[in-house]
Amino acid sequence: MAVITAVDTVDIRFPTSLSLDGSDAMNPDPDYSAAYLVLRTDAGDDLEGHGFVFTIGRGNDVQTAALHALRPYLIGQDVDALLGDMGATSRRLVGDSQLRWLGPEKGVMHMAIGAVVNALWDLRAKRAGQPLWLHLSSLSPEELVSLVDFRYLTDALTPDQALQILRDAEPGRAERIARLREVGYPAYTTTPGWLGYSDEKLARLCREAVADGFGQIKLKVGADLDDDIRRMRIARECVGEHFPIAIDANQRWDVPDAVAWVQALAGFDPAWVEEPTSPDDVLGHAAIARQVAPVRIATGEHAQNRVIFKQLLQAEAIGVMQIDATRVGGVNENIANLLLAARFGVPVCPHAGGVGLCEVVQHLSMFDFVAVSGTMEGRCIEFVDHLHEHFVTPTVVTAGRYRAPEAAGAGTQMLPGSIAAYTWTAQQTDQKVDA
Amino acid sequence: MAVITAVDTVDIRFPTSLSLDGSDAMNPDPDYSAAYLVLRTDAGDDLEGHGFVFTIGRGNDVQTAALHALRPYLIGQDVDALLGDMGATSRRLVGDSQLRWLGPEKGVMHMAIGAVVNALWDLRAKRAGQPLWLHLSSLSPEELVSLVDFRYLTDALTPDQALQILRDAEPGRAERIARLREVGYPAYTTTPGWLGYSDEKLARLCREAVADGFGQIKLKVGADLDDDIRRMRIARECVGEHFPIAIDANQRWDVPDAVAWVQALAGFDPAWVEEPTSPDDVLGHAAIARQVAPVRIATGEHAQNRVIFKQLLQAEAIGVMQIDATRVGGVNENIANLLLAARFGVPVCPHAGGVGLCEVVQHLSMFDFVAVSGTMEGRCIEFVDHLHEHFVTPTVVTAGRYRAPEAAGAGTQMLPGSIAAYTWTAQQTDQKVDA
Repeated sequence: MAVITAVDTVDIRFPTSLSLDGSDAMNPDPDYSAAYLVLRTDAGDDLEGHGFVFTIGRGNDVQTAALHALRPYLIGQDVDALLGDMGATSRRLVGDSQLRWLGPEKGVMHMAIGAVVNALWDLRAKRAGQPLWLHLSSLSPEELVSLVDFRYLTDALTPDQALQILRDAEPGRAERIARLREVGYPAYTTTPGWLGYSDEKLARLCREAVADGFGQIKLKVGADLDDDIRRMRIARECVGEHFPIAIDANQRWDVPDAVAWVQALAGFDPAWVEEPTSPDDVLGHAAIARQVAPVRIATGEHAQNRVIFKQLLQAEAIGVMQIDATRVGGVNENIANLLLAARFGVPVCPHAGGVGLCEVVQHLSMFDFVAVSGTMEGRCIEFVDHLHEHFVTPTVVTAGRYRAPEAAGAGTQMLPGSIAAYTWTAQQTDQKVDA
Repeated sequence: MAVITAVDTVDIRFPTSLSLDGSDAMNPDPDYSAAYLVLRTDAGDDLEGHGFVFTIGRGNDVQTAALHALRPYLIGQDVDALLGDMGATSRRLVGDSQLRWLGPEKGVMHMAIGAVVNALWDLRAKRAGQPLWLHLSSLSPEELVSLVDFRYLTDALTPDQALQILRDAEPGRAERIARLREVGYPAYTTTPGWLGYSDEKLARLCREAVADGFGQIKLKVGADLDDDIRRMRIARECVGEHFPIAIDANQRWDVPDAVAWVQALAGFDPAWVEEPTSPDDVLGHAAIARQVAPVRIATGEHAQNRVIFKQLLQAEAIGVMQIDATRVGGVNENIANLLLAARFGVPVCPHAGGVGLCEVVQHLSMFDFVAVSGTMEGRCIEFVDHLHEHFVTPTVVTAGRYRAPEAAGAGTQMLPGSIAAYTWTAQQTDQKVDA
């Protein structure tokens, strides 16, 4: 019997604030960071499970402490038992009554559990010799349903309904796997649109995005309306009349402000309006959606768990659902999220960027295409060309499409040299904050 | 100029699981704990600010790490500046863009900020020589409005509307202060109703509650319907026909289960049904409320922030609102919560118990009576007679009423001997979990 012998954690931070990459209306100076975790076993196969939570700097030490706190749940555990029933494994962590008090199912502790779940999936996919998207796509509908925690979902999605969705998508899996390997999955780029960039840089990057084959760009908005109007005009001129331009307010507005601001930008025909207000405000998103229709509302990168996604869908608050690979309770909860979206017929266009989010979330969209929604229609994954060089299997995007990864694992593994070079110390954390 | 010179943090855990005190349908074996914080200054007045987050055991180390992570925001800061504009101080912490990513405004990091805010209020009230409830009640409506972060609230509550609520309650403050000192504030007791207790113990404690002068009792439900029916029958027989009995499911049910279960218990005339489902499920609570009316729904001890309370009120999902002293961003966010409740005309009956929650939350209800809602009608504070002996100014409940505390401060300070006796070590944390 192989057991887990070590759970190593590292606080990793990249000094991205120096270049204003990633600047938006709520996050002026992020330092893209990862609270990082490596699971080791005594199986003798040299395989490790890697997982992380993406953060933007300060507090990454707290997130790392939460990973560390999960060690007693893992050390000495039977690897085959853990990986063989990932539904039970996930529920044991998410459902731990004492840890649950710290959320429940939200924030630092829930994201830590998500990173552990993702690391276990990374290990399982490596043992199977498959990339995660293909590994998940090889499971039966019954096995997939067993992975999902339906608690708090059954007024919108029952296990039987989930099973039916997955069975309906079973025919054609092989063809879709082949198609994915052939053409990849659509990407859109946020690279042109950061608030910290000059108009000249915005224009140049918009033209490059079109030339590079992306099907959509996204602009950050919400700091200053006049600036946003000028920047939207520049972008629209650069990309042409019918090219999709999404806009992203990063939670900047109250409900009345969001309605007024979006109406002022509606003439530029935004593809969607992302995070107009608090990610907790289901009713607020629904009110905004009603008032700015037909402009679609998108949110989800900060949606804390499946209960929020359920309500956003029930309230018809979103026309685009944005899952995030490291915000919720890992692969298992994201399967619940994909099933909810399929049940309500809403396309999933994941949040990515940051550090490693592209590498990880692509597996979920590709699995969705093969085994859940069965379509790429109206779907695309965010792409930002930052920090990929630190990963063992970096995202490959060519001609505006994510190429299906073939390396075994979940895409979560960073290069040892990068980990060593960007490890943050307690001494650095204790420096005074001049905010 | 006095500055903050130290932020000491301690992981404190009481082994309450040994006696099954505090056992409910979701939390079978809580170890009541506090992630505890002491602010020290060089003012030379020997005054300290104490604050804590209540948790139920495992993970208290992570919560303590989050408190520790806030040290760089505090050490070296001008005490008068911090305390003199608590609105700005609170917004600086809650609004820190990098920390905010870890929630936003929810979970471990948000609760840590709440503990710091509460510790600062403890220090401020001590410097003023007043108990916190009286200190808050001595502020002008304008000063109180300046404490509130209205971000995400203005579709339901604007600063002008809040000001009007507070101005309407200004006449009569002095009379209500006198009345509070004379008669205290109504309490209800959860002591009889823990799931781990025998029927005999339940019956004895129900009779004692009535004899002790409490105006309401509460029973935990949700593990087994037959048990709940039997226990409700015993309780109803012990307390008499019209005595209020609330029931509390601690998030155990999905929406359809909640409706069916509550309908099965409706004949016992429950005073309210508490936490029927996920605290995140605003629409679920609203659906349950519609289907079990006129039985009232109560929730809030796990409501992560003011945005959730706003929606629960907007959706008419709750007939009773339950704030918690250490779940949200501290005194400031709870003032927002009290104002929201007043705006929607819903009574606030705080969650308490745990360790120290009674000591702290009573200040908020008493402030609400004096300066916000202006009434105790339909209001009561939860009371559980556990662990008060560890506090410097323990709650005093006599004849079923909280007596207004007169000691300066926020009620947050634990005895040094208790802190020393129940300090938890990293070595204990690392023990294997046999869940």
